[in-house]
Amino acid sequence: MASRGEPPTERTRVRRLPERGAYDRPTIDAILDEALICHLGWVTDEGTPRVIPTIHARVGDTLYVHGSAASSTLRALRDGREVCLTATILDGLVLARSTFHSSMNYRSVMVYGRPRVVADRDEQLLASRAIADHVLPGRGDEARPPTDRELAQTLILALAISEASAKIRTGPPKDDGADLDLPVWAGVIPLRTVAGEPEPSPDLPPGLAPPRFSRPV
Amino acid sequence: MASRGEPPTERTRVRRLPERGAYDRPTIDAILDEALICHLGWVTDEGTPRVIPTIHARVGDTLYVHGSAASSTLRALRDGREVCLTATILDGLVLARSTFHSSMNYRSVMVYGRPRVVADRDEQLLASRAIADHVLPGRGDEARPPTDRELAQTLILALAISEASAKIRTGPPKDDGADLDLPVWAGVIPLRTVAGEPEPSPDLPPGLAPPRFSRPV
Repeated sequence: MASRGEPPTERTRVRRLPERGAYDRPTIDAILDEALICHLGWVTDEGTPRVIPTIHARVGDTLYVHGSAASSTLRALRDGREVCLTATILDGLVLARSTFHSSMNYRSVMVYGRPRVVADRDEQLLASRAIADHVLPGRGDEARPPTDRELAQTLILALAISEASAKIRTGPPKDDGADLDLPVWAGVIPLRTVAGEPEPSPDLPPGLAPPRFSRPV
Repeated sequence: MASRGEPPTERTRVRRLPERGAYDRPTIDAILDEALICHLGWVTDEGTPRVIPTIHARVGDTLYVHGSAASSTLRALRDGREVCLTATILDGLVLARSTFHSSMNYRSVMVYGRPRVVADRDEQLLASRAIADHVLPGRGDEARPPTDRELAQTLILALAISEASAKIRTGPPKDDGADLDLPVWAGVIPLRTVAGEPEPSPDLPPGLAPPRFSRPV
């Protein structure tokens, strides 16, 4: 795959295998939209790295993440310190004849930036709805929106998608010529995430149909 | 779920929803073994956070990760700086009647520590084999092990599992009593990763059967 677009900064450039890098927004946005969760990293007040899994949602050029306002975890980010948000979709196991050339097929995105606290009520509602829709399209219409009291208990952060890159591996393994005659199967085992039978809440009254999980994950 | 075990350090304590925390090694190990990849975070020389997806493998009390020795990414970690390794398994979408109580069922592990470079050849071979087996049990027996030249091109890091915690959410959504009569479906949509039909390499001779992807993911 040819590299698409140009890296916005040196630290977002995919250097070792540059053919895996992509910097165009359609590619980046598609990965961010498909990945159900991301991993968010930052440097704590003590100077140590911290990485947490969290749900995100994209609205145009902005990524939203949210958490409890009472949680010390996300509160550390209220001061606008830098984060690295990484979202990864696994597409397959790449089984080469050698362990050295074995790999994974994947699509990942890395976004650097300094999140801002979302304080505006309309933007808070927009972000809450986007997060519901990110997980399950249409859910933002169905679920009850947050009350003012709930919004006060929620910390929502917005991260601009201005310094981002994608890294993608596709295709079969690339074995050494000398290994081609080894009696070892080589190829790709594709992976995907599927939904099982919906499990209704014990307190759900009869007569309500479950939503369909139709996301392409 | 009652909290299991005691957090090894304050920063591994699950504070806000303590019932989600688990600190016993069987729980931690099972999550690390099942998660196909992890996200590894550290602080760069410039003081910014960096988070990358990578394959890991556990052997007893040690986690191994590997990468190209030519890659500037992993080379930053040769100096023994601190990392935060987070592995997450998504188990389901938790659809509450309200966006506020909507969530995910998941199992995640966070490991802090300072990785050491694996320089011993036997341990390098052990780690390479463990990584092959982590992705697909038995693959370490089938695939050709690395040559000395390949080992020289590979950087393998070992991280002791001494400061770790798990965080787990299970079960249905916990809706507010006032929301129970809303005409909105509530419950869990379980998620799992499944393998598709193996795709043989174009250069694979006939007669070799594909391995079965039997991991419980």
